[in-house]
This record gives sequence, C-alpha cells and structure tokens, in this order.
Amino acid sequence: MAVVVSLDRSGGGKKASIEPLLSLVREDLDRVNAEIVKRMESRIPLIPQLAGHIIASGGKRLRPLLTLAAARLCGYQGTRQVLLAACVEFIHTATLLHDDVVDASELRRGRQTANTVWGNEASVLVGDFLFTRAFQLMIEDGSLEVLRILSTASSVIAEGEVQQLMTSNDTSTSEDAYLEVIAAKTAALFAAACRVGAVIADRPRAECEALESYGRNLGIAFQLIDDALDYSSRSATLGKNVGDDFKEGKITLPVILAFRRGDGAERTFWKRVLERREQKENDLEHAIGLMERHGTLRDTVERARHYGAMARDALGLFAAGPVKDALVETIEFSIERAH
Amino acid sequence: MAVVVSLDRSGGGKKASIEPLLSLVREDLDRVNAEIVKRMESRIPLIPQLAGHIIASGGKRLRPLLTLAAARLCGYQGTRQVLLAACVEFIHTATLLHDDVVDASELRRGRQTANTVWGNEASVLVGDFLFTRAFQLMIEDGSLEVLRILSTASSVIAEGEVQQLMTSNDTSTSEDAYLEVIAAKTAALFAAACRVGAVIADRPRAECEALESYGRNLGIAFQLIDDALDYSSRSATLGKNVGDDFKEGKITLPVILAFRRGDGAERTFWKRVLERREQKENDLEHAIGLMERHGTLRDTVERARHYGAMARDALGLFAAGPVKDALVETIEFSIERAH
Repeated sequence: MAVVVSLDRSGGGKKASIEPLLSLVREDLDRVNAEIVKRMESRIPLIPQLAGHIIASGGKRLRPLLTLAAARLCGYQGTRQVLLAACVEFIHTATLLHDDVVDASELRRGRQTANTVWGNEASVLVGDFLFTRAFQLMIEDGSLEVLRILSTASSVIAEGEVQQLMTSNDTSTSEDAYLEVIAAKTAALFAAACRVGAVIADRPRAECEALESYGRNLGIAFQLIDDALDYSSRSATLGKNVGDDFKEGKITLPVILAFRRGDGAERTFWKRVLERREQKENDLEHAIGLMERHGTLRDTVERARHYGAMARDALGLFAAGPVKDALVETIEFSIERAH
Repeated sequence: MAVVVSLDRSGGGKKASIEPLLSLVREDLDRVNAEIVKRMESRIPLIPQLAGHIIASGGKRLRPLLTLAAARLCGYQGTRQVLLAACVEFIHTATLLHDDVVDASELRRGRQTANTVWGNEASVLVGDFLFTRAFQLMIEDGSLEVLRILSTASSVIAEGEVQQLMTSNDTSTSEDAYLEVIAAKTAALFAAACRVGAVIADRPRAECEALESYGRNLGIAFQLIDDALDYSSRSATLGKNVGDDFKEGKITLPVILAFRRGDGAERTFWKRVLERREQKENDLEHAIGLMERHGTLRDTVERARHYGAMARDALGLFAAGPVKDALVETIEFSIERAH
C-alpha cells in the first residue's frame, strides 16, 4: 500500500532524542524494570506470561521515565520514585490491554496483541490485575497525597476511554471534545507521573503544579503527534502501522479537521469509511490525500507545537541543568517524531 | 510615560474588522439596544443611571453580537435572539460592575467607573440587579435549555472570578491555572452566547457544539490579546490604559511567561512589583523591557493564534456565506487588535 505523505519539514540539525533522559536515570530505570518483573509475579502463570508479553514489547517506558526525571529534577534523594514509576507503568499497561480489547486490535508495536494470543477475557482480567497491583504499590508507598493523584488520574483515564467510546465513529466530533478525550486518556497519566516526582521530593505547590502542567501538555502534544503519525509514512520507521485508526473508524484531529474543512462529497466519504466503516481498497490513500489537500496533518503538528511550548514554559521555574534540558528535549522528541 | 513596545508584525493588507458582522445584524442589534434600555428601567432612578453609565460607555457589544450572528448563521427566522442577546449583555455588564469593585478600578474605556462615581455598594447592588434581570429575560424566553446554558455560564464566570482572586498577586501562577481562569471568566460567556443562537434555531447537537466551541476559543484568544494589550503601545489607540493590570498586580500570561523565563533577579523584581505591589517610577517600563527580552508578548499573541485557529475550524460544519465570513473575520479582528 503506497502511502506517500511525510510530515517532514525540519531542516538539518541534530534530531531530538530521549537518550539524554534515559541515560540520566538509567540506574533507576533498571530498578523499575526489575520491580515490574517482580511485581507482576503471581501463582497463576498466565498473569506474568500475558503481562510480560505487553510489558516487554518494546515500549519506551516514557511515563515511568517522567516520574524518575521529575523526582531527579526536584533533587529527591530517596528511593520511592522506583516503586511509583513501576506503578505508573502498571496503570498504563492495564489501559493498553483494555484498549486493545475494545479496539479489537491485532497488532501493537508490530507484535500480536495479548487479546489475539490469549483472548479478550484474559486480557481484560490481567488488565484488572495490573490495575489493582498498581493500587497495592501506591498503598505500599503509603502517601495519601500520591494515592489521591494516581487514583484520580486512573479514574480520569477511564472516563476518557468511555468518552472516546461514545464519540467513536462520529465524524461530527468537535476538536474540543477530542481534546477532552486525549487530555483524559493520555495526558492525565503523564501529568500525574510528573507530579508524583515533585510530591515525593516535598517541593512547594508551585513546583508540583509546574511539573503536572509539563506532563499534561507534553501528553497532549504526544497524543496529537501519535494521531498524525497514524496517517504518515514516518510511522513505518517507528514500528507503527499506518491506517490503524482509519480501519477502526477512530475520530482523531487529522480527521476532524479534514471533515470540517471538506466539502459535501468529502463528508460523504468520511461518513462512509469512518461511521459506516465501509472501506474499500485505496480509501486510506484517498483519506490521506484529503488530509494533504486541507493541511490537516501539518496543522495537527502545529497544534502539538502549541502544547509543547506550554510544556516548555511550565519548566521555567526550575534551575537550568541536565535534567531540565533532557525534559525539554523530550518535548522536542515527542513532536519531531512526526518528521 | 514612554511605552515603546508595539506588537505589530503584520505586513500590508486589509485590517480585519467587526464591521461586516455589525452590518449583517445591525437591525437586530438596534432592537437589542432598545431592549437593554427598556429592561434596565426601574422605579429606583439610580439603577438605570448607574447601569446606563456602563452600558453606554462604548463597548463593542461583542457578546450579544455573537448571539445574533450565531442565530443568523443557523438560519433562525424568529425573534428570540433579541431578548437573549440583551440577556447576555446584562450578564456581561453585571460582571464588569463587580470586577471594577473587586479591582478598585477608577477608569474603564477612558471614563470613570461606576464605583468611582457612585461607590462600591451601589455598583455591587446594581450588578446584582442586572444579573437577576438577565434571569428574568431568560425565564421570559421560556426555554429550559437556554436557561441551563446561560445559568451554567453565569456560575462558571463567578467561579472563574473567585479563582482569579485566589491567584491574584501570585507570581508562581501556572499557565494552566491562568487558562482555566480565562476560560471561565471570559470564554464561558462567549461560548454560551454563541450556543444559544444555535439552540433557538433548533440545530443538531453537532452544530450547537461547533458554535459553542467557536465562542469558547474566540473568547480565550480575545482575553489573551486583551492581556497582551495591557502592556502594549497599541492600547492607546484602543482607548485602553497601558499598565492597568500591572498596577493591580494581575497575573496574566505575559507576566507568567516573563516570570518563568526570567532569572533570579528578575523574579525578585516581579515579586516586588506584583506580589508586594511596591511599584516605583519606571517599573512598568522595566517590566515591558523584560517581556520584550523574553518574547512574552509575542508568544502570548502566538498562543492566541492557536485558539483562533481552533475557533475557525469549529465553524467548518457551516456552509460558506457572509455570516460565516464575518465570524471568521471577527477572530482575525480579535487577534489583530494586537498589531
């Protein structure tokens, strides 16, 4: 299938990367990974087997990385960040398992999904297991404030998923409604992961809020780019499949803008392929062509830049240094993935 | 006082204006103005006197204009828009009266404020009167849905004002918190004013939400530019005073960004002038210099453009035509005021 759109527009210069962030907290992250393996143990072999399948499937561990980096940025000297970062990854993994069931996804990061291998029931229940395990980790940490932050985020994520379900296949979904969904289903956990790092370091309210804001805006930018990548040729190099959202009839910003900017014939097309999901060969290419004509992938990246700029400014309260630099580069990395 | 920053960056080309919007609904607006005069009557002469002072003080009637234009865009053929637009203006005027008391403002649009002329007590109470009169107008209209939309907006505005009070003089206010405040105190009424137009025209949910979204994003852009103008030389030509927010220690985005981007000495300055409000001659010039150095006025306009772009896309569902064009030009007008 020939998909020709590239979101490239950068000139030369060094590519932004999360390597600096990774190397700053490498030892902590190794501990988090060990904790994850240890904590998904169970006397029921299917649990570590299924959970291990998705947890070991090559994710970037971006959310736990944020907890580790936020704690480091705040000068935290203890060890609580390790357990809490594992907890954040468990919450994330639980939602991925449930997402794949809801979306009936067969592939994630190029591998078979857990629901494909073990079925929907097992995926739902192991997701529940990871979710309750996350709560056990929070309780083990023992801070009511951390519990409040992470349990609120979990509840907001669940609300966001339900809201997404309600708007799925509805081509008249507004950009505002879409932003609400991604703020809930993606950005809330980014925000909580960051805030927790400041809270365990016992930093003043302004710094906790600044890190939360960094996380929230980074999360929105990240999801916007994810949604653009689903229609971009860059995806292949990232181990993503072009057109997954399209096949599922997901209503993301590139579609919302194309629908609103399109004429009657184009809207009829969008309704056929995304509402009724009657998709024929070359429909995806046609969809991408419409997005190109109306500049909706470009503008989705443009919208992401706005949230990236807000995330960067949120860090302004913190002194310059390698951790702050790495967090700023993480914003750039999240957006430049589109290039 | 020499204030040298201009936000100008536009090249040639025609200036955007709200004239096209005004001329499209001129007759309706005349009816609204007549209704406003009629409805602020009372056996207590101070009420129309004080209310008339602020209502006749040269505002653009932007919010009632939006209700009229939204109804027109939706092909509404009745007359309910007139009363509801007057209602929207009453809600707005009530909040202005109370704002001026809270801020102890002496001037608004170059004229003495009502609280300066008649005192705080009278301003508070006439504000309450206008607010209850707005409810009477809604009830007279008789639609529970319209009542719900406008009363929710009124409540959100009040919440936003309280939230602003809580964050006032706090230089560590985050951009997120600021956005929440302006979404509540300004954008909620823009959103409701627009939505009401679609609701009385009995349009489908998607169109009601689209107009609400247009209003909300326009309102955010509008307030961002207002806050930038408070530090810009363009203000003089708009009948605004440069530095009012500064004198009151208001924490708006140009300040938030300057504080976060500034060094230790600069933050000490911002705390002195805005938290402790110990202001000396030339402090405003120094503040504007810092904003210039960190590009915070430019970036406030940049942020406004993002919301402007969202407002424009929200209108995508509606067919092309003079009303839609005028609403798009109103976005441009709201942002270009900064030029």
